[in-house]
Amino acid sequence: MAEPGAILLSVTGFDPAAWLEELKRQAPGRRIVTEPDGDGDPSIRYAVVWKQRPGILNRLPNLAAIFSIGAGVDHIFKDPEVPDVPIVRAVADDLTERMSEYIVWQVLDHHRKGPRYRRQQADRVWSEDRMQPAARDVTVGILGLGLLGLDAARKLRLLGFNVAGWSRTEKTVEGVDTHAGEAGLDGFLAVSDIVVCLLPLTPATEGILSKPFFARMKRRGPLGPATLINAGRGGLQNEADILAALENGWLGAASLDVFQTEPLAETSPLWTHPRVTITPHAAATSVPAALIPPMIAQMEAYERGEPLTNLVDRQAGY
Amino acid sequence: MAEPGAILLSVTGFDPAAWLEELKRQAPGRRIVTEPDGDGDPSIRYAVVWKQRPGILNRLPNLAAIFSIGAGVDHIFKDPEVPDVPIVRAVADDLTERMSEYIVWQVLDHHRKGPRYRRQQADRVWSEDRMQPAARDVTVGILGLGLLGLDAARKLRLLGFNVAGWSRTEKTVEGVDTHAGEAGLDGFLAVSDIVVCLLPLTPATEGILSKPFFARMKRRGPLGPATLINAGRGGLQNEADILAALENGWLGAASLDVFQTEPLAETSPLWTHPRVTITPHAAATSVPAALIPPMIAQMEAYERGEPLTNLVDRQAGY
Ligand SMILES: NC(=O)c1ccc[n+]([C@@H]2O[C@H](COP(=O)([O-])OP(=O)(O)OC[C@H]3O[C@@H](n4cnc5c(N)ncnc54)[C@H](OP(=O)(O)O)[C@@H]3O)[C@@H](O)[C@H]2O)c1
Ligand SMILES: NC(=O)c1ccc[n+]([C@@H]2O[C@H](COP(=O)([O-])OP(=O)(O)OC[C@H]3O[C@@H](n4cnc5c(N)ncnc54)[C@H](OP(=O)(O)O)[C@@H]3O)[C@@H](O)[C@H]2O)c1
Repeated sequence: MAEPGAILLSVTGFDPAAWLEELKRQAPGRRIVTEPDGDGDPSIRYAVVWKQRPGILNRLPNLAAIFSIGAGVDHIFKDPEVPDVPIVRAVADDLTERMSEYIVWQVLDHHRKGPRYRRQQADRVWSEDRMQPAARDVTVGILGLGLLGLDAARKLRLLGFNVAGWSRTEKTVEGVDTHAGEAGLDGFLAVSDIVVCLLPLTPATEGILSKPFFARMKRRGPLGPATLINAGRGGLQNEADILAALENGWLGAASLDVFQTEPLAETSPLWTHPRVTITPHAAATSVPAALIPPMIAQMEAYERGEPLTNLVDRQAGY
Repeated sequence: MAEPGAILLSVTGFDPAAWLEELKRQAPGRRIVTEPDGDGDPSIRYAVVWKQRPGILNRLPNLAAIFSIGAGVDHIFKDPEVPDVPIVRAVADDLTERMSEYIVWQVLDHHRKGPRYRRQQADRVWSEDRMQPAARDVTVGILGLGLLGLDAARKLRLLGFNVAGWSRTEKTVEGVDTHAGEAGLDGFLAVSDIVVCLLPLTPATEGILSKPFFARMKRRGPLGPATLINAGRGGLQNEADILAALENGWLGAASLDVFQTEPLAETSPLWTHPRVTITPHAAATSVPAALIPPMIAQMEAYERGEPLTNLVDRQAGY
């Protein structure tokens, strides 16, 4: 049997110590290389990356696969020289469950008028107005019916919400009112009282959450103008347009976990907008103990001659 | 066939106009009587009540059944002269679903550190600390495994939480770690990171959420000291003890929908406590359109000679 391939861990933007430790724990038989080592190293077969240093992957002569540390892979394509090897997505129940928690939490916070009750509490007001629509009178529309969108859809349905979905290719999902492509977007927006964005960031989706989109959203739903929840990527949204749409009545409220520039600038007016809820890209944190084991399992399967799974479609960009 | 029995609607504490309207809509063939009419009226067979005027039911010579407008029936027993006729609970999917929404919402708000993120947002702080336990590492303990507790349990399990439950009589519920009676309370509290109270208010449960209870709660869970969510009745809790337990580290946080005195006094220190979330008895509002139809259906069944269902056990008090 051949020597187990070495792994390059290439991360920018945060301290990868926990990932290094978990790699060592899960793959004691493999050499784990971190930068500045590894440049051009022919023994490296796998790269585990988050926003890798541009060009570094392209200089590895025997790279067999790139593993993403996060669910999105847009960070990998920021490097204009990504070599043409398979890219493996981060897929783990742990990640999916955390994202669905976030989505259900934020949907319920709007549906159950969390911001209003918190304001009343601050003012010591015991309101006699306790009305809110039943979940069955509210439709949550999910942009992106992938791994995350489908799990969120299932859980929202179990809570009684109607669920609509939008994807690139046509899909049939039990209990979900599905729409596809640009042609399907109007039909999707016409029914969606709360719009949840779980799209990947690709050339086709970049900036989609902007003025023309908000102009097409539902104006008069059971909660007033439609609500936006974006847990996809900041590059999907135009924050100036979100603020304008909140002002002109196109958008009732927004929960944003991701931003055009992260960390969100201290000067952003989003922080203090009374109808905006901000979390610091915390919707579904990648946990090393959950994500490293399936990566190692894939490397081992690959070395036994089995095909890699959960691969990115480079043409589609996700 | 006998004349359909007349209905007395007896409500104090809120304006019953919407209930009267719905009764008229759903039972056009019945006489609907409201106070001050109806006293001693022999044609009245049914009473639909919320905190009825004391003594009034006892003066109705032909009363066949009392229907509660809310899920709890403690309000009926405030009247020391409740006649010995069957009492029918309010049971409707609409009510159950609203309560589970509230429970899931508040559990997630604590689990996902809502209060902390809202504080950070107010301070324009982008935190790098995004860690929170996975749902599978958190146990939600539910006091009361009745109609509402069981539905909340099921939904919390689907989100990945461990669920424990406590009831008066022993119960076996799939996927739920069940405990019963005073003897089972310590075992229940030993595992519960978030304690959700969905008990009815009875002589046996009154004031249960007080110092000796908090002293037995879990001190070191994945979220710190245990969290309390009370959506049962205010009479179950001692608010001075809740405040003391928040201070001495027995309780990490509390979400309260019900209070010893409602409306909560403007002077209550609960309003401004940073770890207390207050809603104005809004967890599961009774909606006339959802609750009146099953009442009328029961009256019709009763007049056909069928037995009443969802009856209160007067001995147990719920
Ligand atoms: N905030 C956070 O903490 C966090 C954490 C994890 C992930 N995320 C984000 O969540 C995204 C989704 O993850 P996932 O695992 O669910 O991805 P996925 O399985 O690849 O699903 C992506 C979905 O988006 C749809 N889609 C892609 N391009 C589209 C287009 N141009 N028009 C319409 N629909 C389009 C796809 O349509 P088809 O079904 O037709 O292919 C698919 O349904 C990730 O890419 C990442 O950006 C954020
Ligand atoms: N905040 C709101 O808006 C709102 C709205 C609706 C209802 N509620 C409250 O929610 C309560 C629960 O409703 P439900 O429909 O679920 O009631 P339920 O079906 O009667 O269930 C009551 C549960 O509590 C348990 N229980 C009663 N006495 C007990 C004791 N002494 N020790 C331990 N367990 C005890 C029962 O045990 P067994 O299973 O052994 O009988 C049962 O599991 C209502 O009574 C009402 O007070 C509040």
